[in-house]
Amino acid sequence: MSFEIDPRLQKDSILLGHFTLCQLRLHVDARFPWFILVPQIPAISEVFQLSPEQQQQFWQEAVSLSEQLSVLFKADKMNLATLGNIVPQLHLHCIVRYQTDSAWPEPVWNGEEETPYEEEQRDELVQKVFTRLEGVHGFQPSLDL
Amino acid sequence: MSFEIDPRLQKDSILLGHFTLCQLRLHVDARFPWFILVPQIPAISEVFQLSPEQQQQFWQEAVSLSEQLSVLFKADKMNLATLGNIVPQLHLHCIVRYQTDSAWPEPVWNGEEETPYEEEQRDELVQKVFTRLEGVHGFQPSLDL
Repeated sequence: MSFEIDPRLQKDSILLGHFTLCQLRLHVDARFPWFILVPQIPAISEVFQLSPEQQQQFWQEAVSLSEQLSVLFKADKMNLATLGNIVPQLHLHCIVRYQTDSAWPEPVWNGEEETPYEEEQRDELVQKVFTRLEGVHGFQPSLDL
Repeated sequence: MSFEIDPRLQKDSILLGHFTLCQLRLHVDARFPWFILVPQIPAISEVFQLSPEQQQQFWQEAVSLSEQLSVLFKADKMNLATLGNIVPQLHLHCIVRYQTDSAWPEPVWNGEEETPYEEEQRDELVQKVFTRLEGVHGFQPSLDL
């Protein structure tokens, strides 16, 4: 069985590139710099279903990503969450939060309407992320800007 | 500087016991079996501020707790989240979700009113958790039932 991204994740986010274990994706909602890590392992919905080595790799990629995004975007707080009530395929939200953002201090799932990116705004954000993630856990960009 | 639990976490949850690194707490809201892990390290609000050894220990305790709770409560899905927009002290929510719970498929932070536990109901739940967690990452119960 080979890994295939869930169609809902594919619709809600775009593929930016790959770490050693995970796809890095950008959520289409521009209200927050909102990233999603998806381990490329088929048929997994809970972290404990990964092997111990995969669990460790997943966490290292998540924590490094969180630190790099926090510095890059001067976050007031990073939000990390793996919920999966709607999309069971294991994925971790990694979201940059500001005290001035539209949902603060609530979680981002607050029923507010999503805001789409302008293409230029998105490309500029992604370019900054690519530069920041160079060399981090084997990150390889895959989106052409 | 010694570790002290944040007053808001103390109000919203009760201390059940300790793993090697983290306090295990039960949220006072009975809508879901809702647990909180708090690494007993002072002045930390982001996972990446922990040392690499502490990060690894935190994750191992979180994943083990999640697996044990999933089996014990026959969860449809486990939700893991470290947000901290309201309480900056690093803490991880570990919540048992059912397709029949009142918030499904939304996250638990959905504006619904909290439901308090009956004392007997809470003690019964906690006793089951204590039995299940015996020997897991040095877990020591500290709540007298």
